[in-house]
Amino acid sequence: MRKLINDPADFVDQMLTGIELAHPGRLRRPGDEAGAIVRADADFAGRVTIATGGGSGHLPLFLGYVGPGLADGCAVGQVFASPSTDQMLAVTRAIHGGRGVLYVYGNYSGDRMNFELAADLARAEGIEVETAVAADDVASAPADRAQSRRGIAGIYFAYRVAGAAAATGADLPRVAAAARSAIARTRSMGVALAPCVLPAVGHANFDIPAGTIEVGMGIHGEPGVGREELRDADAVVDDLVDRLLADAPADAGDQVAVLVNGLGATCLEELYIVYRRVHERLAAAGLDVAHRSVGEYATSLEMAGASISLLFLDDELAGLVTAPASSPLVLVP
Amino acid sequence: MRKLINDPADFVDQMLTGIELAHPGRLRRPGDEAGAIVRADADFAGRVTIATGGGSGHLPLFLGYVGPGLADGCAVGQVFASPSTDQMLAVTRAIHGGRGVLYVYGNYSGDRMNFELAADLARAEGIEVETAVAADDVASAPADRAQSRRGIAGIYFAYRVAGAAAATGADLPRVAAAARSAIARTRSMGVALAPCVLPAVGHANFDIPAGTIEVGMGIHGEPGVGREELRDADAVVDDLVDRLLADAPADAGDQVAVLVNGLGATCLEELYIVYRRVHERLAAAGLDVAHRSVGEYATSLEMAGASISLLFLDDELAGLVTAPASSPLVLVP
Repeated sequence: MRKLINDPADFVDQMLTGIELAHPGRLRRPGDEAGAIVRADADFAGRVTIATGGGSGHLPLFLGYVGPGLADGCAVGQVFASPSTDQMLAVTRAIHGGRGVLYVYGNYSGDRMNFELAADLARAEGIEVETAVAADDVASAPADRAQSRRGIAGIYFAYRVAGAAAATGADLPRVAAAARSAIARTRSMGVALAPCVLPAVGHANFDIPAGTIEVGMGIHGEPGVGREELRDADAVVDDLVDRLLADAPADAGDQVAVLVNGLGATCLEELYIVYRRVHERLAAAGLDVAHRSVGEYATSLEMAGASISLLFLDDELAGLVTAPASSPLVLVP
Repeated sequence: MRKLINDPADFVDQMLTGIELAHPGRLRRPGDEAGAIVRADADFAGRVTIATGGGSGHLPLFLGYVGPGLADGCAVGQVFASPSTDQMLAVTRAIHGGRGVLYVYGNYSGDRMNFELAADLARAEGIEVETAVAADDVASAPADRAQSRRGIAGIYFAYRVAGAAAATGADLPRVAAAARSAIARTRSMGVALAPCVLPAVGHANFDIPAGTIEVGMGIHGEPGVGREELRDADAVVDDLVDRLLADAPADAGDQVAVLVNGLGATCLEELYIVYRRVHERLAAAGLDVAHRSVGEYATSLEMAGASISLLFLDDELAGLVTAPASSPLVLVP
């Protein structure tokens, strides 16, 4: 294990302490609740607020999307494990400003179970809750079962759209509808070149032999569409872009937002080499890139690899996804 | 090799094309000059401008520090190799606004040679040039030969200070003095846990056995102060902080700026675990953290490891290092 950590049992708590110490005035823990962070720089009153959460090990996902124009609070579990219902409920109470809370999270059974129960408990306290579940990974299920797809890096667009919609003063049904529209129009897929090691395990749970890639592997190492020989970056990108475009929504227009995301150990130079090819391919397909983000936005610890996400824009989403937003942990251009 | 690249000979050029395509309106190539980028969103007239440069493979260093409140232009060479005199001269001409250009770069012989010659040629054209050479790596030479130290991640503070000083309208000698003061008061040191692979080589030039760390290794794999067993993160941090504090400038006050930097494959969770301990140790030493940045700011491709940089602030630097700045490639808090 080649990690700068202490006792693996302290991994999440010490990471959270570091985040709190590094961002005073911007982030705070809500009360005594462990594993939860809310904005310290926000007034929640009078607008819809956004809660998110998921397993640790994906920074800047999920904690890094707590900030202006993004989410207002976040609950995180242990590495690759869902936070609890109590954590999510504590976040919900802390950020509720009187106009309801939108839950935005990825489509994993543990998260669904805990966050659905948290929503029920919040409603019982009089807090209106709606949910938008990210399910953007086209490798995880075919288009006719799109609702069973896993959520991966494309949730980034859902945060931006939800946060921007909430900032307009829209009511909860409208903010939820905007976030769901972003999710319904986002397609992602990635490749993994080397596995990651969970701190508590100490060795990789699976191997990716050098010279091969796992096409469509999930951000916890879930199986993708197959193992292939590693080819040139352009050939890998072409394959991913072909699959994303083939899966485009029926009413896709000619504008897209693009996210080229690094999984942890793939350097920024490679991500720009990938972006270059994505951009060229989209231009050749008659698509205009209205927004792009390139960097590490949803990682799998130190996994090597990258994913590409496309948000097929309509007029409403084009405005929302480029609205001003900022995070203490990651560049939000 | 586990990289998303095409022909290694195209690595730098395709990376630059990706950066240009991703940041229209913010960055542009000056004329036909390859390997050079300048701000597309700036008016250079009437103020001192800042040029930088160095080898590729360190993103967001060097290209990522071209932006408001930072550098105005940058020349990059092949991976871990200096850019040419011509490239630096092209950047100098493109950004000169009539009040002179400050070169900020790291202390490596190739860079020194090429940038000193570029400065001579620029002066022959009537462009005033001053230089501030970053030499912050305390592992690379003892304090009595501090001017021969290598420049590593601490150059980040030099960019912020130089860019902020230039934005005040100060003249070239004053901007240069501020940058040199930041460099003279910055101390950095890192540890490497796993090596990186140069695209053109295809395998690591050196090995770091699992369970060991290279203390003080340079960002191109230069030897540090020794190989040790990997210990808990807190023990590693304590060793680095002890060495940095022991090397503090004689007139150090009680305020510092902190950079916890990832070398490429070390995840953000670990960097926050490291920051937590750095913060606690500095507080215990009576030092107040006036500014902190945590993330990947100067990498070595996909090397695993981290470095810690401390800028010992005085009143002037405290104002300059926290002045507003932004980059298209990296979060500048």
